[in-house]
Formats: sequence, C-alpha cells, structure tokens
Amino acid sequence: MTTVDLNADMGESFGPWNMGDDAALLKTVTSANIACGAHAGDPDVMAATMRIAMENGVGIGSHPGFADLQGFGRRRMDIPRATLQNSIRYQVAASVGMAKSLGAKVRHLKVHGALANMASEDADLAADLFEAALSVDPDLIVMVLCATAQEEAVRKLGCAYAGEIFADRAYNDDATLVDRSLPGAVIHDPDLAGKRMVDMVKAGAIITESGKRIETSIDTICLHGDTPTAVQIAASVRAALEASGVEVRQFEGRKA
Amino acid sequence: MTTVDLNADMGESFGPWNMGDDAALLKTVTSANIACGAHAGDPDVMAATMRIAMENGVGIGSHPGFADLQGFGRRRMDIPRATLQNSIRYQVAASVGMAKSLGAKVRHLKVHGALANMASEDADLAADLFEAALSVDPDLIVMVLCATAQEEAVRKLGCAYAGEIFADRAYNDDATLVDRSLPGAVIHDPDLAGKRMVDMVKAGAIITESGKRIETSIDTICLHGDTPTAVQIAASVRAALEASGVEVRQFEGRKA
Amino acid sequence: MTTVDLNADMGESFGPWNMGDDAALLKTVTSANIACGAHAGDPDVMAATMRIAMENGVGIGSHPGFADLQGFGRRRMDIPRATLQNSIRYQVAASVGMAKSLGAKVRHLKVHGALANMASEDADLAADLFEAALSVDPDLIVMVLCATAQEEAVRKLGCAYAGEIFADRAYNDDATLVDRSLPGAVIHDPDLAGKRMVDMVKAGAIITESGKRIETSIDTICLHGDTPTAVQIAASVRAALEASGVEVRQFEGRKA
Amino acid sequence: MTTVDLNADMGESFGPWNMGDDAALLKTVTSANIACGAHAGDPDVMAATMRIAMENGVGIGSHPGFADLQGFGRRRMDIPRATLQNSIRYQVAASVGMAKSLGAKVRHLKVHGALANMASEDADLAADLFEAALSVDPDLIVMVLCATAQEEAVRKLGCAYAGEIFADRAYNDDATLVDRSLPGAVIHDPDLAGKRMVDMVKAGAIITESGKRIETSIDTICLHGDTPTAVQIAASVRAALEASGVEVRQFEGRKA
Repeated sequence: MTTVDLNADMGESFGPWNMGDDAALLKTVTSANIACGAHAGDPDVMAATMRIAMENGVGIGSHPGFADLQGFGRRRMDIPRATLQNSIRYQVAASVGMAKSLGAKVRHLKVHGALANMASEDADLAADLFEAALSVDPDLIVMVLCATAQEEAVRKLGCAYAGEIFADRAYNDDATLVDRSLPGAVIHDPDLAGKRMVDMVKAGAIITESGKRIETSIDTICLHGDTPTAVQIAASVRAALEASGVEVRQFEGRKA
Repeated sequence: MTTVDLNADMGESFGPWNMGDDAALLKTVTSANIACGAHAGDPDVMAATMRIAMENGVGIGSHPGFADLQGFGRRRMDIPRATLQNSIRYQVAASVGMAKSLGAKVRHLKVHGALANMASEDADLAADLFEAALSVDPDLIVMVLCATAQEEAVRKLGCAYAGEIFADRAYNDDATLVDRSLPGAVIHDPDLAGKRMVDMVKAGAIITESGKRIETSIDTICLHGDTPTAVQIAASVRAALEASGVEVRQFEGRKA
Repeated sequence: MTTVDLNADMGESFGPWNMGDDAALLKTVTSANIACGAHAGDPDVMAATMRIAMENGVGIGSHPGFADLQGFGRRRMDIPRATLQNSIRYQVAASVGMAKSLGAKVRHLKVHGALANMASEDADLAADLFEAALSVDPDLIVMVLCATAQEEAVRKLGCAYAGEIFADRAYNDDATLVDRSLPGAVIHDPDLAGKRMVDMVKAGAIITESGKRIETSIDTICLHGDTPTAVQIAASVRAALEASGVEVRQFEGRKA
Repeated sequence: MTTVDLNADMGESFGPWNMGDDAALLKTVTSANIACGAHAGDPDVMAATMRIAMENGVGIGSHPGFADLQGFGRRRMDIPRATLQNSIRYQVAASVGMAKSLGAKVRHLKVHGALANMASEDADLAADLFEAALSVDPDLIVMVLCATAQEEAVRKLGCAYAGEIFADRAYNDDATLVDRSLPGAVIHDPDLAGKRMVDMVKAGAIITESGKRIETSIDTICLHGDTPTAVQIAASVRAALEASGVEVRQFEGRKA
C-alpha cells in the first residue's frame, strides 16, 4: 500500500504574537516542523507545540533557521560556515532537549526558509548543516526537498532521510519551483491541491507544469501553515489521499 | 584527604566582544560554568569554550540566566514561573546537545546572576529551576550556594549537588554576602583570598567576617572570571590549597 | 462644548507577526500610541502605522516600553534609573525622527505596559521617564493615567499633559483599577463601555464601581487595541459620546 | 592651508562588553562615528560616548549598520530596500534625538560594515541609504569612501559630503582596497601609516600600492578603533600630519 506523510511548519508564534492555527493543523498532519527560537518560536511556544503534537501522535521535527526574528529567517545572510553549523547545533540541541524534558523525542530535521533555499542550491552547505544536526542526534531523519542539492547531500552523508514535495506550489521541468510572481505558481484551490498530490504520490514523481514526470521518492508533503487557507488545504489533501487509497502516516526514513 | 573543586563562569563573550581570559582560567579551574546564549555566549563561544574545557579536563557546566543580553542577566525580571522553567529547559538543552555534538558531556548546572540571587532567597523558585534543568538531563549535579535557599531546594528534590562558596567575598553571620558597598566586602588580594579558602575548606565551614563558623559542605569554590585580577586570584587560591594539602579536583556530587 | 480624545496602542506588530487591526482603529481614534521597537514594533511597522495615522488625521504618540520583546514590555524589570532614561531617550528619539522623515510630528508620549504601571505607583520614576522624553522633544504632551503618580509627576515637572481613563476597566475607590481576576473588572460589552464613558466625561470624574466620584481632568479615553472586540468597543464609545453631545477630538495639552 | 579630519568608529561597546578605547581615541580624532544600537552600542553607550565627544569638541556622527549584533554588522544580509531605508531612518533618528537630549548635534553620517561595503559597490543602494538618513536630518554631511559608488551617490543626490580614505589599508589601482589576505594589505606600523597619510593628503590623491595616483577629495582619514594599536596609529598619523603642516580639524562638508 502506498503511504505518505503530511508535514507543516509549526511553533512559529513568538511571545505575544500568534502565527497559524497549529492546534487545528496538528489534527491533520503527521509530522510537525517546530521552530527552535531563532527565526521564530520561543521556549514557551516550543513546549506548548510539542505537547499538542504528542497528544495527536504527530512526529516532532526540529526546524532551525537563520537567527533573524524580524525577517522570520526568510532573508539570506552571509555567515561563515562554522558559525552556521554551531547555530544549527544550538537550535537542534534546544529542541532535542526540550522534547526530552516533555517525555518526547525529536524524529526529524527540516531546515527553514532562506537557509533551506540556500541548501537546496548547494550540496556542500546542505551536507554541513545536516552533519551539524546529526552530531547532536544521529538518529534524526533528514527531511529534504526532492530532486534538489539537499537530496544530494543526504546521499553523500548516507543518512536516513525523507523526500518532500510541496502541496501548493507548481514545479518547473528542472524540479525547481515556479517563481511566485508567475500565474499558477501557488495553488490556492484546496481541491486542486488534493488532486495534484494524489497524482504525484501515485506516480512516484513530481509532475511539472508542462506535464513532465520527474521520478523521485515522495515520503512527505509540505503543507504551509501560515496562509489563510492552510487548514482547509491540509484537510483537502489528506481527504483526497485517503479517498484514493493512499495511507497517510509518518515516514519511516529512507536509507540514502 | 580533603578535596575541593574550583569553578568559574566562562563562555561569556558574545559575537565580537570578548569577556575574561577563559583560556588562562581553564588551566586553573576544575569546573567551568558555560553561558548558554541567553545572558551571554553565542553558539560559537559555547562550542569554543567547551572545546578548551575538554582539552584541559575541566568539567563542563550549563550556566543559564535571564535572557537579557544588555543587562548580562544581572537585572531581576518578573517572569511567570512556567516561562522561567521553559527558558531553563531551553538553555540547558542547548548546552547539553552542544556538548554532545563535541563528544563531551555537561556534568553540572549553575544558575547565573539575578536569577541565582532570586533562587538563593526562594527555595520554591530554586526547586522549580533545578527541576526544569533535571527534566532535560537527570544526571546533572546541581551547584548550590552553601547555606542558602538553593541548598534547601536540592535537599527537597533529593538530587545530586555540590555546595559552593566564594573566594573573593566576605560573609555575614547569616551566611549572606557582605554588601558590595561596604569596605572589605570584596577581596582583591590574591594571598588573602588563598588563605581564607584554605581556612574554610579545612574547617568545613564558612568563616564570617566576625569570625563565626557556619558548618556546611564545601565542594567547590567560585572564582570570578570577569575581574582584572581573576587569573591571579585563581592561581593563588589553587596554590594555597595545594600547599596546605588540599587536593583540587572535580566534585563528585553529594547526595541530598 | 465638552470634548474628549480617544487613544489606542498601535504599531505593535513585529516582523511577520501581526497584532491588532490598526487600520480599522485608526478610523475611530484621534490619538495613536505607536510602539518604538523595544517592546513591539519594528522600523517598518512604525513607518507604516505613522503613515496611516497621518492619512486619518490621527495624532501620533511615542509609546516606549521595556526592551523585552518576548514579554511585550509587560514584565517588570529592575533596571538602573539612568539606563531607563537612556532607553526612553532612544525610543522617543527613534519615533520623533521617524515621524519627521515622513513629514509628520510626534505630539504626545505614553509609557507602555509594566513600565507605565511602575510609573503609576512612583512619581519620581514617572518624572524621570517624562523628563528623559522631554529632553528629546520638549513639545511633547505627556499622557498620564488620571489620579496616579504619573499625574503627580507632570504637576511636579510643570509640563503639558493629558489625563487618561480606561474605557474597559472598572475602578476602585482609590482610583486604581479593579484587579483583572475579579468579576466585572474588564468591560466587554460595547454598549456598557460607551455609557460609562459618557457618564465619566460629562461628570469630569472617574466613577468607581461603588459609585463614588473622583474629580479629575479627563482629556482622553484609552481603547485597547489587542482584544477581539477592540474595534467594536471603540466604535461604540465614539458613537455614544457623539450622541450625547461630546465632541471627539485631539486633546490640546493641559498645563500642569 | 591644507586641512584634514580624522575619524574613527566609536560607541561599539554593548551592555557589559567593552570594545576599543574610545576615551583615548577621542583625544586624537576630530569626528566620531557612533554606533546606533543595531550592530553595536546601546542607549547607555551612545549617551556616554556622545558626552565624551562633546567634552573633546569632536564631531558626532551617526553610524548605522545591519541589525545583527552577533555578526557586528559585518555579515551581508539580503534585506528589501524599503526595510533597509526604514532601518537607517530608525537608527539615525535614535542618534539625532539622543544627541539633542544631551545638548549636542549629529553632524555627519557614516554607514557601517557590510552595509557600507555593499553601498561602495552599488550607487543606487548608497543613494537610497543616504536619502533615508537625510529624510531624518537634511543637514547631515555624508561621509563617503573616496572613488567608490558611495561618492557617485552623493553626487547624484547633490548633498553635502566628506571624502574618506583609510589610514591602515593599501589600495589597488582601481581604488578598491587590497584584499586583507594579501601581504601588506593592512598597515600595522604607526610610522608608515603616518607617512602614507601625509603623502596622500598633500597629493590630494589616493596613492596605490603600485604608486599610481588617483585624484580625489580627501576630507577625512579613517582610523580603526578596534585594533590593539589603534590609539598608537591614531596618534602617529595626527603627529605626522601636523609636523608636515597639515591642519587637523573637522571637515566642513563639500557640496556635491
């Protein structure tokens, strides 16, 4: 039976400021990428989000990013490699220990925002970031964007990983995302998002805008949590997958 | 044979700013309380300080404080208890994981600055902070100020601890510190500091300004790292202890 | 003709995080207390909020608080007086200059959160904070909570001020606020809030829960911006005042 | 009579951390570029540094940079233009108002670190940054690196400016700095630094490593404040200039 995991970024509130409806999304997803206090999240938010994830049987992930609160980790920064690695170690360590203190365990790693984009383009950078995270917890499953330099990096490292595609983004023929400024780049229609995911998961391939198939290992689908229709799209994708006979459950971790 | 540990706060540089001569002090002390990035320290500083501690066989401690960089964690803040506990969990987790990534282990906990002062006056607060740290790593040895509410708290929790006195501060008859504004409150003379420590460690008691003895378990001596004479006082205290037949070595952790 | 100003805290979003519906509230209030980037707000948020205030003819106020983003300036901090004054100077300077760069002018000062609470209890502190702000711009009108130590402070300084009462909080007979934990402390009913404000403004007095009248100079009414019913209460208070013949317009600044 | 100004970056301490010997340098320089609390400095440091500058008759400058404390504003960040402009407005406003509160005036602007490097390569960026600063205070004299895109920008804006060269850096034939990794790139010898500056100021030209002369308007010489020999080099450069008949005094501001 075909299975797939559903993941979303979570725990991105900060102090008095709320972001997203984590409690609702945590009823639909199977993996939660929880911010580590650098680009978003604070220790209270981390603990609260991990607790709700535990109650819902959702896998907890460490979601480190640039330490840039105002920019939400979405602005590229030119930081020495060793400093980046120590930042990843610090953030992953904070989430691994926070989970432990709650009786839970961090299962996976997913890099956030601009740093993830940079890692998608640069396998050396990706490998250095993943290695830093694995030095804190060697059992982490590394979530990678399918068919990018992130995937190259896990193959190089030989670590456990899970391949990810986006529920709401159109793909170019080279597996990059269609630029947000172009029409059709972002899918807002929950039904369309669901249908596309069923097609791709069943095909075992990214299906690009032009219809081209790029075979890849689709282990998890990324649902964005910070859009107005996030909860609706998540529910629609999950329902479509289940109706088509795909089982939605946590990834196991694929050996590179 | 009488033994005692020597500890100092370390890793309190931040970004481009240096504080203290950690490399020199790490040749003298046996335990290092390493800041966790909240009141001081950053991931690079943490990693570098831990590495030097490892090279010198110095025990690594987690040294959390208020998340107040400008105030260096020395300004009291009125923060809800659960938020304080999550902050401690976060900071301790970050240092435990950072140490692990370097092949080291955090041995002890020492709370910093204004938060430590508050915990010295309030056993409930101290217990809540220590419990938060132990929920991340139950093997931590909790460093407590001898004869304060911190010591009450470890007795209540029944956890492993180490009792601490100050090398460079005079004591009142109720075991509190003589106010810094009074003459003789701070000992600047390395020879005097050494002599006092020999007397107290041999007596197994705090000897107050008036000459009163307060029996207590002296497991470690706190050497301040951020004063101009820090390295000199540290060396003098160590030399005086060794000359008097006291062995300077890491504490084992006393069962409460 | 009786007149009164309506004010609300604004510009308390930060980076990706939104707080309150400033654009809607700015259609109802006559004065906006705009955060200065310490407890909330960032330069983009400040500029955007000032621009909407200008478009709506709303008076711009500088709203400094503790530099504690996670705690939103609502946690008391024990900070040396001179440091507090420099923090106020810095924040007020940032908003005065930002307004100038947009072709606007900061008209008033309102201290935020825990620092405002402390200043309501301590006239010396209040005077020091107000004096720091006035050293940056001596033309600022200082908004003070009626019948508190803040009002004492402006009388002592002899500076222009505007007295403020809360639309949604019940008062004790000593002019302090009824503790939030008690029933009736916070008024959630827009009609009731409107009626109370008409009564107090017409009486020129705070009317306490017990019915006692405390005569005071009511120049402005504080509408909270960060509650779900904020916009509705604001509209209701304004409509009730206008229906009763009170003109809603910016305060002039009363000479102490 | 030939005149030249001497400037250095100042006020780059933060909270408990000291950087540079500002009090000593302020006896030698004629203009101080004072950090604004984003890459370094805090309100206490700003106020204290401005006071010492006033006492020594040194011109006060606003020295804004990236809001990146750990990286000291030396790491490039990819930030939207409007956000950068608001950040400059905020920082310049803070320093202009802080100076005013002390009875002083900000005379000039100098952009810091990575942002300055970016502005040296991109005249549009430089013009946008300078324009943002001038929108807060149109009387600011803009300090620009001679023969870079920063100088193009002030010509385009038509604002008052002062051209700057480095005392301790060797120049390539295209007026860029010799890469720090190359031998001779940084001048550590106080005598050599002094001699070079006399030659360039008298020639009215940058003299490159190869001996080429690039004519330019040298109004001020940048002395670095955060190196061990900073105070010594500053004194040597000043003495050499004065011995050669060059008057060291504040620039007037050249009209573009």
